[in-house]
Amino acid sequence: MNVALILRIVSVLLFMIACFMLIPAGVAWYYGEHAALAGFLLPILGAFAAASLLFFLLRNADRQLRPRDGFILVGLAWVSAAALGALPFRLSGTIPRYVDAFFETMSGFTTTGATILIDIEALPYSMLFWRSLTHWLGGMGIIVLTVAVFPLLGVGGLQLMKAEAPGPSVDKITPKVTETAKILWLIYLGLTVLQTTLLLLGGLDLFEALTHTFGTLATGGFSPRAASVGHYSSAYVHVVITVFMILAGTNFFLYYKALTRQFSSVLRDTEWKSYLGVFATASLVIALILMRSGAYSGFGQSLRYAGFQAASILTTTGYATTDFALWPQAAQVVLFTLMFFGGCAGSTGGGIKIVRIVTLAKQAVHEMKYLLHPRGVFQITFGGQPVRKNVLYAISGFVFLYLILLLLTSLVVASGGFGIITSFTTALATLGNIGPGFGRIGPSENYAFFQDYIKWYLSFIMMTGRLEVFTILVIFTPAFWRN
Amino acid sequence: MNVALILRIVSVLLFMIACFMLIPAGVAWYYGEHAALAGFLLPILGAFAAASLLFFLLRNADRQLRPRDGFILVGLAWVSAAALGALPFRLSGTIPRYVDAFFETMSGFTTTGATILIDIEALPYSMLFWRSLTHWLGGMGIIVLTVAVFPLLGVGGLQLMKAEAPGPSVDKITPKVTETAKILWLIYLGLTVLQTTLLLLGGLDLFEALTHTFGTLATGGFSPRAASVGHYSSAYVHVVITVFMILAGTNFFLYYKALTRQFSSVLRDTEWKSYLGVFATASLVIALILMRSGAYSGFGQSLRYAGFQAASILTTTGYATTDFALWPQAAQVVLFTLMFFGGCAGSTGGGIKIVRIVTLAKQAVHEMKYLLHPRGVFQITFGGQPVRKNVLYAISGFVFLYLILLLLTSLVVASGGFGIITSFTTALATLGNIGPGFGRIGPSENYAFFQDYIKWYLSFIMMTGRLEVFTILVIFTPAFWRN
Repeated sequence: MNVALILRIVSVLLFMIACFMLIPAGVAWYYGEHAALAGFLLPILGAFAAASLLFFLLRNADRQLRPRDGFILVGLAWVSAAALGALPFRLSGTIPRYVDAFFETMSGFTTTGATILIDIEALPYSMLFWRSLTHWLGGMGIIVLTVAVFPLLGVGGLQLMKAEAPGPSVDKITPKVTETAKILWLIYLGLTVLQTTLLLLGGLDLFEALTHTFGTLATGGFSPRAASVGHYSSAYVHVVITVFMILAGTNFFLYYKALTRQFSSVLRDTEWKSYLGVFATASLVIALILMRSGAYSGFGQSLRYAGFQAASILTTTGYATTDFALWPQAAQVVLFTLMFFGGCAGSTGGGIKIVRIVTLAKQAVHEMKYLLHPRGVFQITFGGQPVRKNVLYAISGFVFLYLILLLLTSLVVASGGFGIITSFTTALATLGNIGPGFGRIGPSENYAFFQDYIKWYLSFIMMTGRLEVFTILVIFTPAFWRN
Repeated sequence: MNVALILRIVSVLLFMIACFMLIPAGVAWYYGEHAALAGFLLPILGAFAAASLLFFLLRNADRQLRPRDGFILVGLAWVSAAALGALPFRLSGTIPRYVDAFFETMSGFTTTGATILIDIEALPYSMLFWRSLTHWLGGMGIIVLTVAVFPLLGVGGLQLMKAEAPGPSVDKITPKVTETAKILWLIYLGLTVLQTTLLLLGGLDLFEALTHTFGTLATGGFSPRAASVGHYSSAYVHVVITVFMILAGTNFFLYYKALTRQFSSVLRDTEWKSYLGVFATASLVIALILMRSGAYSGFGQSLRYAGFQAASILTTTGYATTDFALWPQAAQVVLFTLMFFGGCAGSTGGGIKIVRIVTLAKQAVHEMKYLLHPRGVFQITFGGQPVRKNVLYAISGFVFLYLILLLLTSLVVASGGFGIITSFTTALATLGNIGPGFGRIGPSENYAFFQDYIKWYLSFIMMTGRLEVFTILVIFTPAFWRN
């Protein structure tokens, strides 16, 4: 294992995160939040010093990374990012206990949006800003991973997502990938500017516009408002955020294609069409249920609330415009089933992801054809390309591990004395990086009441879900450590 | 499609069921239940007449069955068995509405054990006996299907279960298979005699011993007692039924092997070891939770209740010795996770089945090895034999369809106005042929309150789950009806 190089790359990452922490430090200075300012400056200076020292000391590290090193690197990067990012919360006294600060920061970087905060609006502006910024950075991080790292690691059948992404071979970290990553970042930045502007036009101040944009585009879900997006009554704001949640859950390569005028290939994209289909169907069904219940005035308003919540859960964002735990039960069950889906591959969304579900659906249909014609030869295709068998195996393995982790996580949560709904939807909401669920973690609740060991465990699960499960679990196999 | 032959075989089946209905008719005569006796005799005579006529009229049917015909045959056989078996309940006025009678009978034949009866003990003996007998016949039917029909149809990766079972080719209905089926029936009959005797020794009368034996060996769960097995306080009865539930959830080929002195191959059986491992672990965990809660006196009693309930849910039987909805929540979550497992292939148990879960787990581990050694060549084995790729595909397709049906069924149930726990565990309990679940279908509840369309739908789902999903779903594909 190339420990030296791994640590060197992690030190670069920590240096970069410390740089980004200068922004909330500036916010703290601007609003005169002295305790918060100190809480930022100390870890920033510490990280600068430690990272520079490490980078210098390890300058002779061998530059060869093997697949094994890649998994350790990705895992360590996320853990150390959360460990560093948690310090300002703890040092400033905003979040008195480190386990809570770590959970909140991991929830931020993994774009989960599960919070341990009970009184969100009591926090200093700078802390709220940093909290939302962890989402935005995490979303950006996931895009890098999906473009440049996961394909190299061959994780979980995401090869399907690409075309642009290179095959699983180390010598492919070409200028082309770096360039693609740059373009995707520019798109991310462009969407950020666009949504922020639209929210400013809707009457939000810059602070609120930015933080909500961070939470939306990362499909995160942290809001500086206790009532989440429900704080704003404006239909315009709801619709803007709904649209951008859907955009954030879309494969970012599609924007690249649209910008390079490959419109027909965007419209032909099987995953995207399925994703929009699921969103539209769920919104419509929920809207009809809400309308029948008379909770909102007329179909238009019902559809607005239904569409917002369907987009929020499907894309794994986790924002709420209302306490959907008070909706008719049938509407809640629709949201519950959406928790099993997730965004598109190559988006900032989490969950199982549409591409995997569509592929398995095709495989199941294929299997039935085979029952009818046992000697027939059938080929599954995706986007016109044949799907290779090892991709199917990877997807099947992913979904199985995902389900086993759901059950295991339910048991761990239950050991704290919680019931089926709370345990199972906590598992869905953390592994799928959604945030809120049902029962005691409903939209008006939080994760503060869980025992410490459950918070540590859930932090691990949020990371495992975010990093496509395999990336983390493989580290725990005996084969990983053998020779 | 060979409609004539399909109808001819179904007519034989209905004739046989009518023969078996003579037994509860005898019970009705013995207890002097006149309305019930009439309720049996009418459908018996009708079935004899219609079946004989059909059998005679179709005597010139082509004797060639294609795979397609096989699926229609299996589906039609189960539907018509339930349709005929429901008549006595309806005609005698025991169950006033046909939809309820059909649901109850389908629940019986599929060995689900979900009931629409509110006051079970008010039923005539003969009706209770028939209700339990449908379990026993359904269990026997499933063994025939697993030995002789599913392997021919190539359904869902159950090929793994075999060794004795023939490959997917129609000309393999050899005397050997018929003989194997006969031996398995003798084992089933032997276990029936054994358990009945043991229950008689425990103080149950013949009626109660037989009905509970039927419910146990078929992993069904119907009891003539409102309190299910909890009606009996005897530890002996609880332990006997626990042991026989575990035996019923075991691959029946293992008994065949044990009888032919292949003990080492029984002890090496991966599926059986995993099944017993899951049972032992779940029992122990629940026992510890129960002991800590002080619900029962000491570890021994806690383990007895825990083991009974774990066996009941794992094997998909559905009996209860207590209202486990009143247990500590953590214990309930353990039972909830068990609802995703099921018995062994080749048993009367339902659910996903252990063999599939073990195979997918091996596949997931294999996938992680492949991540570490992208150019490596690995082979998954099961019981020392390499697992063929098409078996893996079939299993992956099965699990995916199972999950989709769980979500779809949750939505259908929710449309009746029910919440997440009721909707989702109803889906698990019917598709997995378990019977009771949580929420409004808890162990002290029933299915009576569901709307009619939900009852029809759930009848369909119980059958789909029982027939390994593919067998029924394939009929609904366009490819099935093409040419």
